[in-house]
Amino acid sequence: MISVVILGAGNVATHLFRVFNKTENITVKQWFNRNLKSLDHFKNSVAITNDLAALTDADIYILAVSDDAIADISGQLPFKNKLVVHTSGCVNIHDMDKKNRRGVLYPLQTFSKAAPIDFSNVPICIETLDKKDYLLLKQLALSIGSPTKRVNSDQRKVLHLAAVFVNNFTNQLYRIGHEITESESAEFDLLKPLILETAKKVQNMSPYMAQTGPAKRDDKKTIKNHLSLLENNHHKEIYNLLTDSIKLTHGRKKL
Amino acid sequence: MISVVILGAGNVATHLFRVFNKTENITVKQWFNRNLKSLDHFKNSVAITNDLAALTDADIYILAVSDDAIADISGQLPFKNKLVVHTSGCVNIHDMDKKNRRGVLYPLQTFSKAAPIDFSNVPICIETLDKKDYLLLKQLALSIGSPTKRVNSDQRKVLHLAAVFVNNFTNQLYRIGHEITESESAEFDLLKPLILETAKKVQNMSPYMAQTGPAKRDDKKTIKNHLSLLENNHHKEIYNLLTDSIKLTHGRKKL
Ligand SMILES: NC(=O)c1ccc[n+]([C@@H]2O[C@H](COP(=O)([O-])OP(=O)(O)OC[C@H]3O[C@@H](n4cnc5c(N)ncnc54)[C@H](OP(=O)(O)O)[C@@H]3O)[C@@H](O)[C@H]2O)c1
Ligand SMILES: NC(=O)c1ccc[n+]([C@@H]2O[C@H](COP(=O)([O-])OP(=O)(O)OC[C@H]3O[C@@H](n4cnc5c(N)ncnc54)[C@H](OP(=O)(O)O)[C@@H]3O)[C@@H](O)[C@H]2O)c1
Repeated sequence: MISVVILGAGNVATHLFRVFNKTENITVKQWFNRNLKSLDHFKNSVAITNDLAALTDADIYILAVSDDAIADISGQLPFKNKLVVHTSGCVNIHDMDKKNRRGVLYPLQTFSKAAPIDFSNVPICIETLDKKDYLLLKQLALSIGSPTKRVNSDQRKVLHLAAVFVNNFTNQLYRIGHEITESESAEFDLLKPLILETAKKVQNMSPYMAQTGPAKRDDKKTIKNHLSLLENNHHKEIYNLLTDSIKLTHGRKKL
Repeated sequence: MISVVILGAGNVATHLFRVFNKTENITVKQWFNRNLKSLDHFKNSVAITNDLAALTDADIYILAVSDDAIADISGQLPFKNKLVVHTSGCVNIHDMDKKNRRGVLYPLQTFSKAAPIDFSNVPICIETLDKKDYLLLKQLALSIGSPTKRVNSDQRKVLHLAAVFVNNFTNQLYRIGHEITESESAEFDLLKPLILETAKKVQNMSPYMAQTGPAKRDDKKTIKNHLSLLENNHHKEIYNLLTDSIKLTHGRKKL
């Protein structure tokens, strides 16, 4: 049995609580948040507190709080030599107070409270300073069905950066697709199967191999047509920059 | 029974042949390509030809050839008053020779010969000049299980343009994610579930609502960290432009 205390009550903390709570060999001994209201809903299933001094004994303390609060809270913990981990993609392991054993449990997925999460689709990137702690965190992750990977702070930062490209920036391209289609009262819905297929394709093929379209073919006529259709200068700029990027990648253009 | 002649032997033509051939109420009467070699493999299942003058009678002639060849081939057809359609996202319906009844059957999906296609995930955008032809094309599309939508030439052009954003440009962001992770020997594979989740999210939620991350929050510290991690100036430019785009969309910045 692995015993856990969760700190924070946001997107990540809430999904972790839910999955831990239904996992046989994990017990959530306590749930802390500075503001008890967010925990009210769960007070019948777990001991809740807003007092760091009242934290109970456990194998792992998970700081699922905002990046900026991690260092500070780690310093306020009223014990030492315990395993304390954060869940951030971009906070260094050494930013936490060294009075405790430190680790990172970074779930490489996008969480919102409302959307259900299947933890078998959440790769968990683990970093620790101590080998024994690594094995314990790995066991925790495997218990909830997540694939795990040992990842150091530099690799984790780069994964977090790459996640911004494939998640936030990609989503913004969907948004632009939405704006462009609505402007001609065409339906964005028609693009949804293509969006899904594009994501599925790179599950088994490199993005390099999966590329198609006018930029890769350097089809000047279509590119010119597209630019003349785009009324928004900002969209034009994005069209030009990503077209150049594809040309560079596929040897149609030199830097 | 709907009878069809296919012209062209590329990605689209090949997938159309395969699905028509296994659909009960559709018969492919003949398959034309200027170069017979590409059709050789199919010569036992369908009549093949490389001679436009030898085209046989059918309800629909589908020009699944390169955009630039559509007008030319439509002019060379040795008959008139037949229904002739092309499959392109960006060629005008009026670019085809008016001696025949004209239409468009634009499959809004990405096709490559090797990858299997489920036509229930291929929305087919239909345009015709004549109402009766519209109903026939709709019946053809429904027979292979595809959703259909009546779309005029302006809407189709805009859908084709939006498809470049959500397919080619998105795929290039995946490519950049690949380059960035490899540069730190982190694994691109770890990003694959996130890529899929990002695409799934907008199936039921607008991209506007689905957005998260440092640009939307205007989290200056993380943005600065990310820019300092990016060594490639071209990647930096893309990071800045898409970050600005998200800020504009979410009211964090004005044009
Ligand atoms: N969301 C994701 O998709 C995702 C994915 C991977 C990793 N992460 C990482 O996981 C961590 C949590 O993210 P999240 O999305 O769950 O955040 P969130 O939903 O914004 O929740 C943040 C939590 O931190 C608490 N908090 C903030 N400042 C605090 C302070 N000074 N003292 C004490 N508590 C404080 C908040 O308390 P109140 O309730 O009182 O405001 C809240 O419970 C972050 O490190 C994030 O980088 C997030
Ligand atoms: N691929 C997609 O994802 C996709 C999606 C939606 C719509 N479309 C549209 O579908 C059409 C076909 O695309 P595709 O990807 O199937 O193309 P493709 O694989 O490049 O095949 C093009 C076909 O056109 C023939 N062709 C080219 N120039 C010709 C000419 N001057 N005279 C006669 N035949 C000629 C080629 O003949 P040879 O075999 O002799 O070279 C080949 O059979 C295009 O209008 C395209 O815009 C494509």
